[in-house]
Amino acid sequence: MSFFDITHKDNRSSARVGVIRTDHGDIETPVFMPVGTQATVKALTPEDLLDLGAEIILNNTYHLYLRPGTGVIESFGGVHGFQHWSRPILTDSGGFQVFSLGLGKLTKQRKVKHDLLAESLAEFTVEEVALKNPKILAKVDEDGVTFRSHLDGSTHRFTPEISLEIQHKLGADIILAFDECVPYPSNRKYALESLERTHNWAKRSLETHKLNKNQPYKQFVFGIVQGSVYPDLRAKSARFIGGLGFDGFCIGGVSVGEPKSEMYKAIESSVPFLDACKPRHLLGVGDIDDIFEAIERGVDMFDCVSPTRLGRNGSLYHSQASRASKFRVNILGEGYKTQTDPLDPECSCYTCANYSAAYLSHLYRADELLAYRLGSLHNVHFIVNLVKKIRQSILNGDFPLLKQKWLS
Amino acid sequence: MSFFDITHKDNRSSARVGVIRTDHGDIETPVFMPVGTQATVKALTPEDLLDLGAEIILNNTYHLYLRPGTGVIESFGGVHGFQHWSRPILTDSGGFQVFSLGLGKLTKQRKVKHDLLAESLAEFTVEEVALKNPKILAKVDEDGVTFRSHLDGSTHRFTPEISLEIQHKLGADIILAFDECVPYPSNRKYALESLERTHNWAKRSLETHKLNKNQPYKQFVFGIVQGSVYPDLRAKSARFIGGLGFDGFCIGGVSVGEPKSEMYKAIESSVPFLDACKPRHLLGVGDIDDIFEAIERGVDMFDCVSPTRLGRNGSLYHSQASRASKFRVNILGEGYKTQTDPLDPECSCYTCANYSAAYLSHLYRADELLAYRLGSLHNVHFIVNLVKKIRQSILNGDFPLLKQKWLS
Repeated sequence: MSFFDITHKDNRSSARVGVIRTDHGDIETPVFMPVGTQATVKALTPEDLLDLGAEIILNNTYHLYLRPGTGVIESFGGVHGFQHWSRPILTDSGGFQVFSLGLGKLTKQRKVKHDLLAESLAEFTVEEVALKNPKILAKVDEDGVTFRSHLDGSTHRFTPEISLEIQHKLGADIILAFDECVPYPSNRKYALESLERTHNWAKRSLETHKLNKNQPYKQFVFGIVQGSVYPDLRAKSARFIGGLGFDGFCIGGVSVGEPKSEMYKAIESSVPFLDACKPRHLLGVGDIDDIFEAIERGVDMFDCVSPTRLGRNGSLYHSQASRASKFRVNILGEGYKTQTDPLDPECSCYTCANYSAAYLSHLYRADELLAYRLGSLHNVHFIVNLVKKIRQSILNGDFPLLKQKWLS
Repeated sequence: MSFFDITHKDNRSSARVGVIRTDHGDIETPVFMPVGTQATVKALTPEDLLDLGAEIILNNTYHLYLRPGTGVIESFGGVHGFQHWSRPILTDSGGFQVFSLGLGKLTKQRKVKHDLLAESLAEFTVEEVALKNPKILAKVDEDGVTFRSHLDGSTHRFTPEISLEIQHKLGADIILAFDECVPYPSNRKYALESLERTHNWAKRSLETHKLNKNQPYKQFVFGIVQGSVYPDLRAKSARFIGGLGFDGFCIGGVSVGEPKSEMYKAIESSVPFLDACKPRHLLGVGDIDDIFEAIERGVDMFDCVSPTRLGRNGSLYHSQASRASKFRVNILGEGYKTQTDPLDPECSCYTCANYSAAYLSHLYRADELLAYRLGSLHNVHFIVNLVKKIRQSILNGDFPLLKQKWLS
C-alpha cells in the first residue's frame, strides 16, 4: 500500500480523487483540514470534528514549541495523545508563523516593503532590532531564523534541522520542510534570494528527516514550493522541490494579500513540475472560490483558520448566500432575531439540526460561549463537507457543473 | 401521581429523597440544577448536560425578558423549544436580578446600607434616581419594581402580575413568585417592611397564576421565603408563604454575603413551617459544605452559577482537594503543566475521561475556548453527581457518614 493513491481523475481538468494512508488512518482527498493552532481546533472537541467529518487536522509547530513546549507533548508520545485526536495530524514547520508574527506582520502594519526592511535589518542582531523596534519579532539569515516569542519576548532560533527535530518530537503524520514565506508584495530580487534559501533549507530538512529512525510510526515529509507571484520562480521552485524526494508538496506563500488571480497563476506554474503521484497541499487557503479553482488545478489538500475565525465572528456559511457575500451571512442581521427555522435549513450540521437561527443569533448577541462553539462547528462542517461534495462530483464526472453552480 | 413524592427519609436528620414529576420528565431529589441565565448553561450544550446527569436547569426571567424578549421565546412554545432542552426547567421571578443589578449591587459596591439608601430614594422617580446616580438600576414601591435594563438603560417595570405573566409565556415547568430579595446586611425594620411586601406579592403571584388556563402543560409555582438573617422573620415568612397553597417553596435571600451560620439558621427557621410534603429549593447556593448542611436541614433543590463561573476561571473541583481550599484546585498551578494523568483520576466526567491535566492546563494558559467548555463541564458534573451521591447515601442510611467524610 502506498502513501498516496489517485483513484480517479477528472476528464476535463487537473482535479483528482485519491487516498492518503497514514498509521493514524486514511484521508480521502481532496480534503480540507481544520486548523488547531494550539493543539485545539478553537471551541471544538475531537468528537465534534469526527462527527462533522474531519479526517485530518493541522497543528502549528511554532505555537506548540513555545507553549506547552515540545517536551510536554513528547511525554504524551506526541500531538495525538496530547490532544485526544487519534486520526492523522499535519504540523507545519514554524516558518510561516515566525515570519507572519515577525517581518510579515510589520510589513502589513506599516506597508513597509519586506525586502527593504530585511536589507536594513541585515546589519543588526535580533536583540538590537528588537530594541530599535519592539514590533519586529524575527530576523532571517542563511542558516535559519532568530525570533522572539510573541508570548514573552524570549529569543529563539529555528533552522531546518531544529524545525524537523521538533516536528519529529511532536510526531504528526505529515510534517513540513522549513521554509521562508515571503510577504506580498516582495520584489523579484528578494523573492529569488529567499527562494534559494528555502531550497537550501528544503534539502537540509529532508536530510534531517532521513536521520530520524526512532519514530514508532511513519512520518511523511512535504517540501514547500515558494516563489511569490513570479511564475518563473514558482516553476523553478516546483522543479527543484519536486526533484528532492519528498512524500508530497505544499504550495506556500499564497493567500498573503496577493490578488486571487496571482494565487491561481502560482498554482498553475507549480503543479506541472510536481510528481503527479504525490499529494499537493495549498497552504492556508480556505475561501470557497479558491478551493474550487485550486482543485481544478490539481490541489489535493487545504487548511485554513477561516471557518473557525469567521465562526467566532458570526460570519456563517450559508447554502443560499451569494458569491458576492463570500457564501456567508451575518448572524447578527435583524432577520435572524425571530427566525424559528435553522440558520441554513439545507445544512445537516449539529447546529442547524438542533437550533434555530433565532437562538443562535441570541447567543451571539449575548456573547455566550456556546455561540462560538455552534458557529465554528457549522462553518467547519460546511467547508469540510463542501470539499467532500467536490470529491464526489469528481467521481461522478460533474465537477465542472458543481463548480459552475457555486461560482457563476 | 402527585407532583412530589418523598420516597425515603433519613433517620438522623431532616434529609429526604424524593421525586418531582413534571410534564417534561421526573427529577430525583435532592438535585442540583445548573444555571442557564440566558437560556444556555455557559459553554455547554444540552447534550453535555444530559450526559453529565443534569435533570433540570434554571433560566433567569429578567435576562430572557430583556433579551431575546418574551415574544421570541413564545414563538418557540417556550424555553424548552428555544434552547433545545426537553427536560424540566425552572425560571426565577426576575426579582433577584432586578435587585442584584440595582440596589443590591450598589450596596455591595459602596457599602451603603440598603435601607438608608432605599429611604433616600423614596422621594425620587427611577429616572431622577438614574440621573443622580447612573449605577442605580432599580426602585421598589409597594406595587412592584421599576428598573433600568443593564443592557441599554431602558426603563421597565415588574409587578407580581407582570412577572408571572412573563413566566407563563416562557413556559418553564416550575416558576417562582415575585419577591424582593433584601441585601445583606439589612436592618430588622427594613427586612420586615420588605417581607410584608414580598408576602403581598406572593399572594398576587399565586392569584395571577390561578388565572392562567392556557398552558399546554402544567406549570408549578413556588413561593419564596424571605426574612433576611432574622429567625423570627424567617419563621413568620415560612408560616405565611407555607399557608398560601404553593406547589413548593424557595428559601431566598441567602448567600448574599451573610456568614454561613446565618444561612443555616435561616433554613432551620423556615423549614419547620413549610409543608413537609412539598419540595424546598435553596436559591443560589452551590458551595459543597452548604449543600450538605442544607440537605441535612431538609432542602431538596439547589441552583448556582458557581460551577460554570469557577470553571471558566480555572478553579476546578477535585475529589482530593481539602475543605480549606473549598474542594477546588487551580488548574494554572505549575504542577499541572506536566501532569499526563487527568485532573482528577477519580472523576468520570468527559473531561477527566479524555484529557490530561497538562492539556487542560495548556488550554487555560492559551486562553482557548475549549478550556471553558471542559472546565465548566467538569465542575457541573462534579456538583450534580455529588448531590446524586448524597441522594444515594440517604437511601443507604449513611448520609451522616458521607457528610462527615467531606466536611471533617
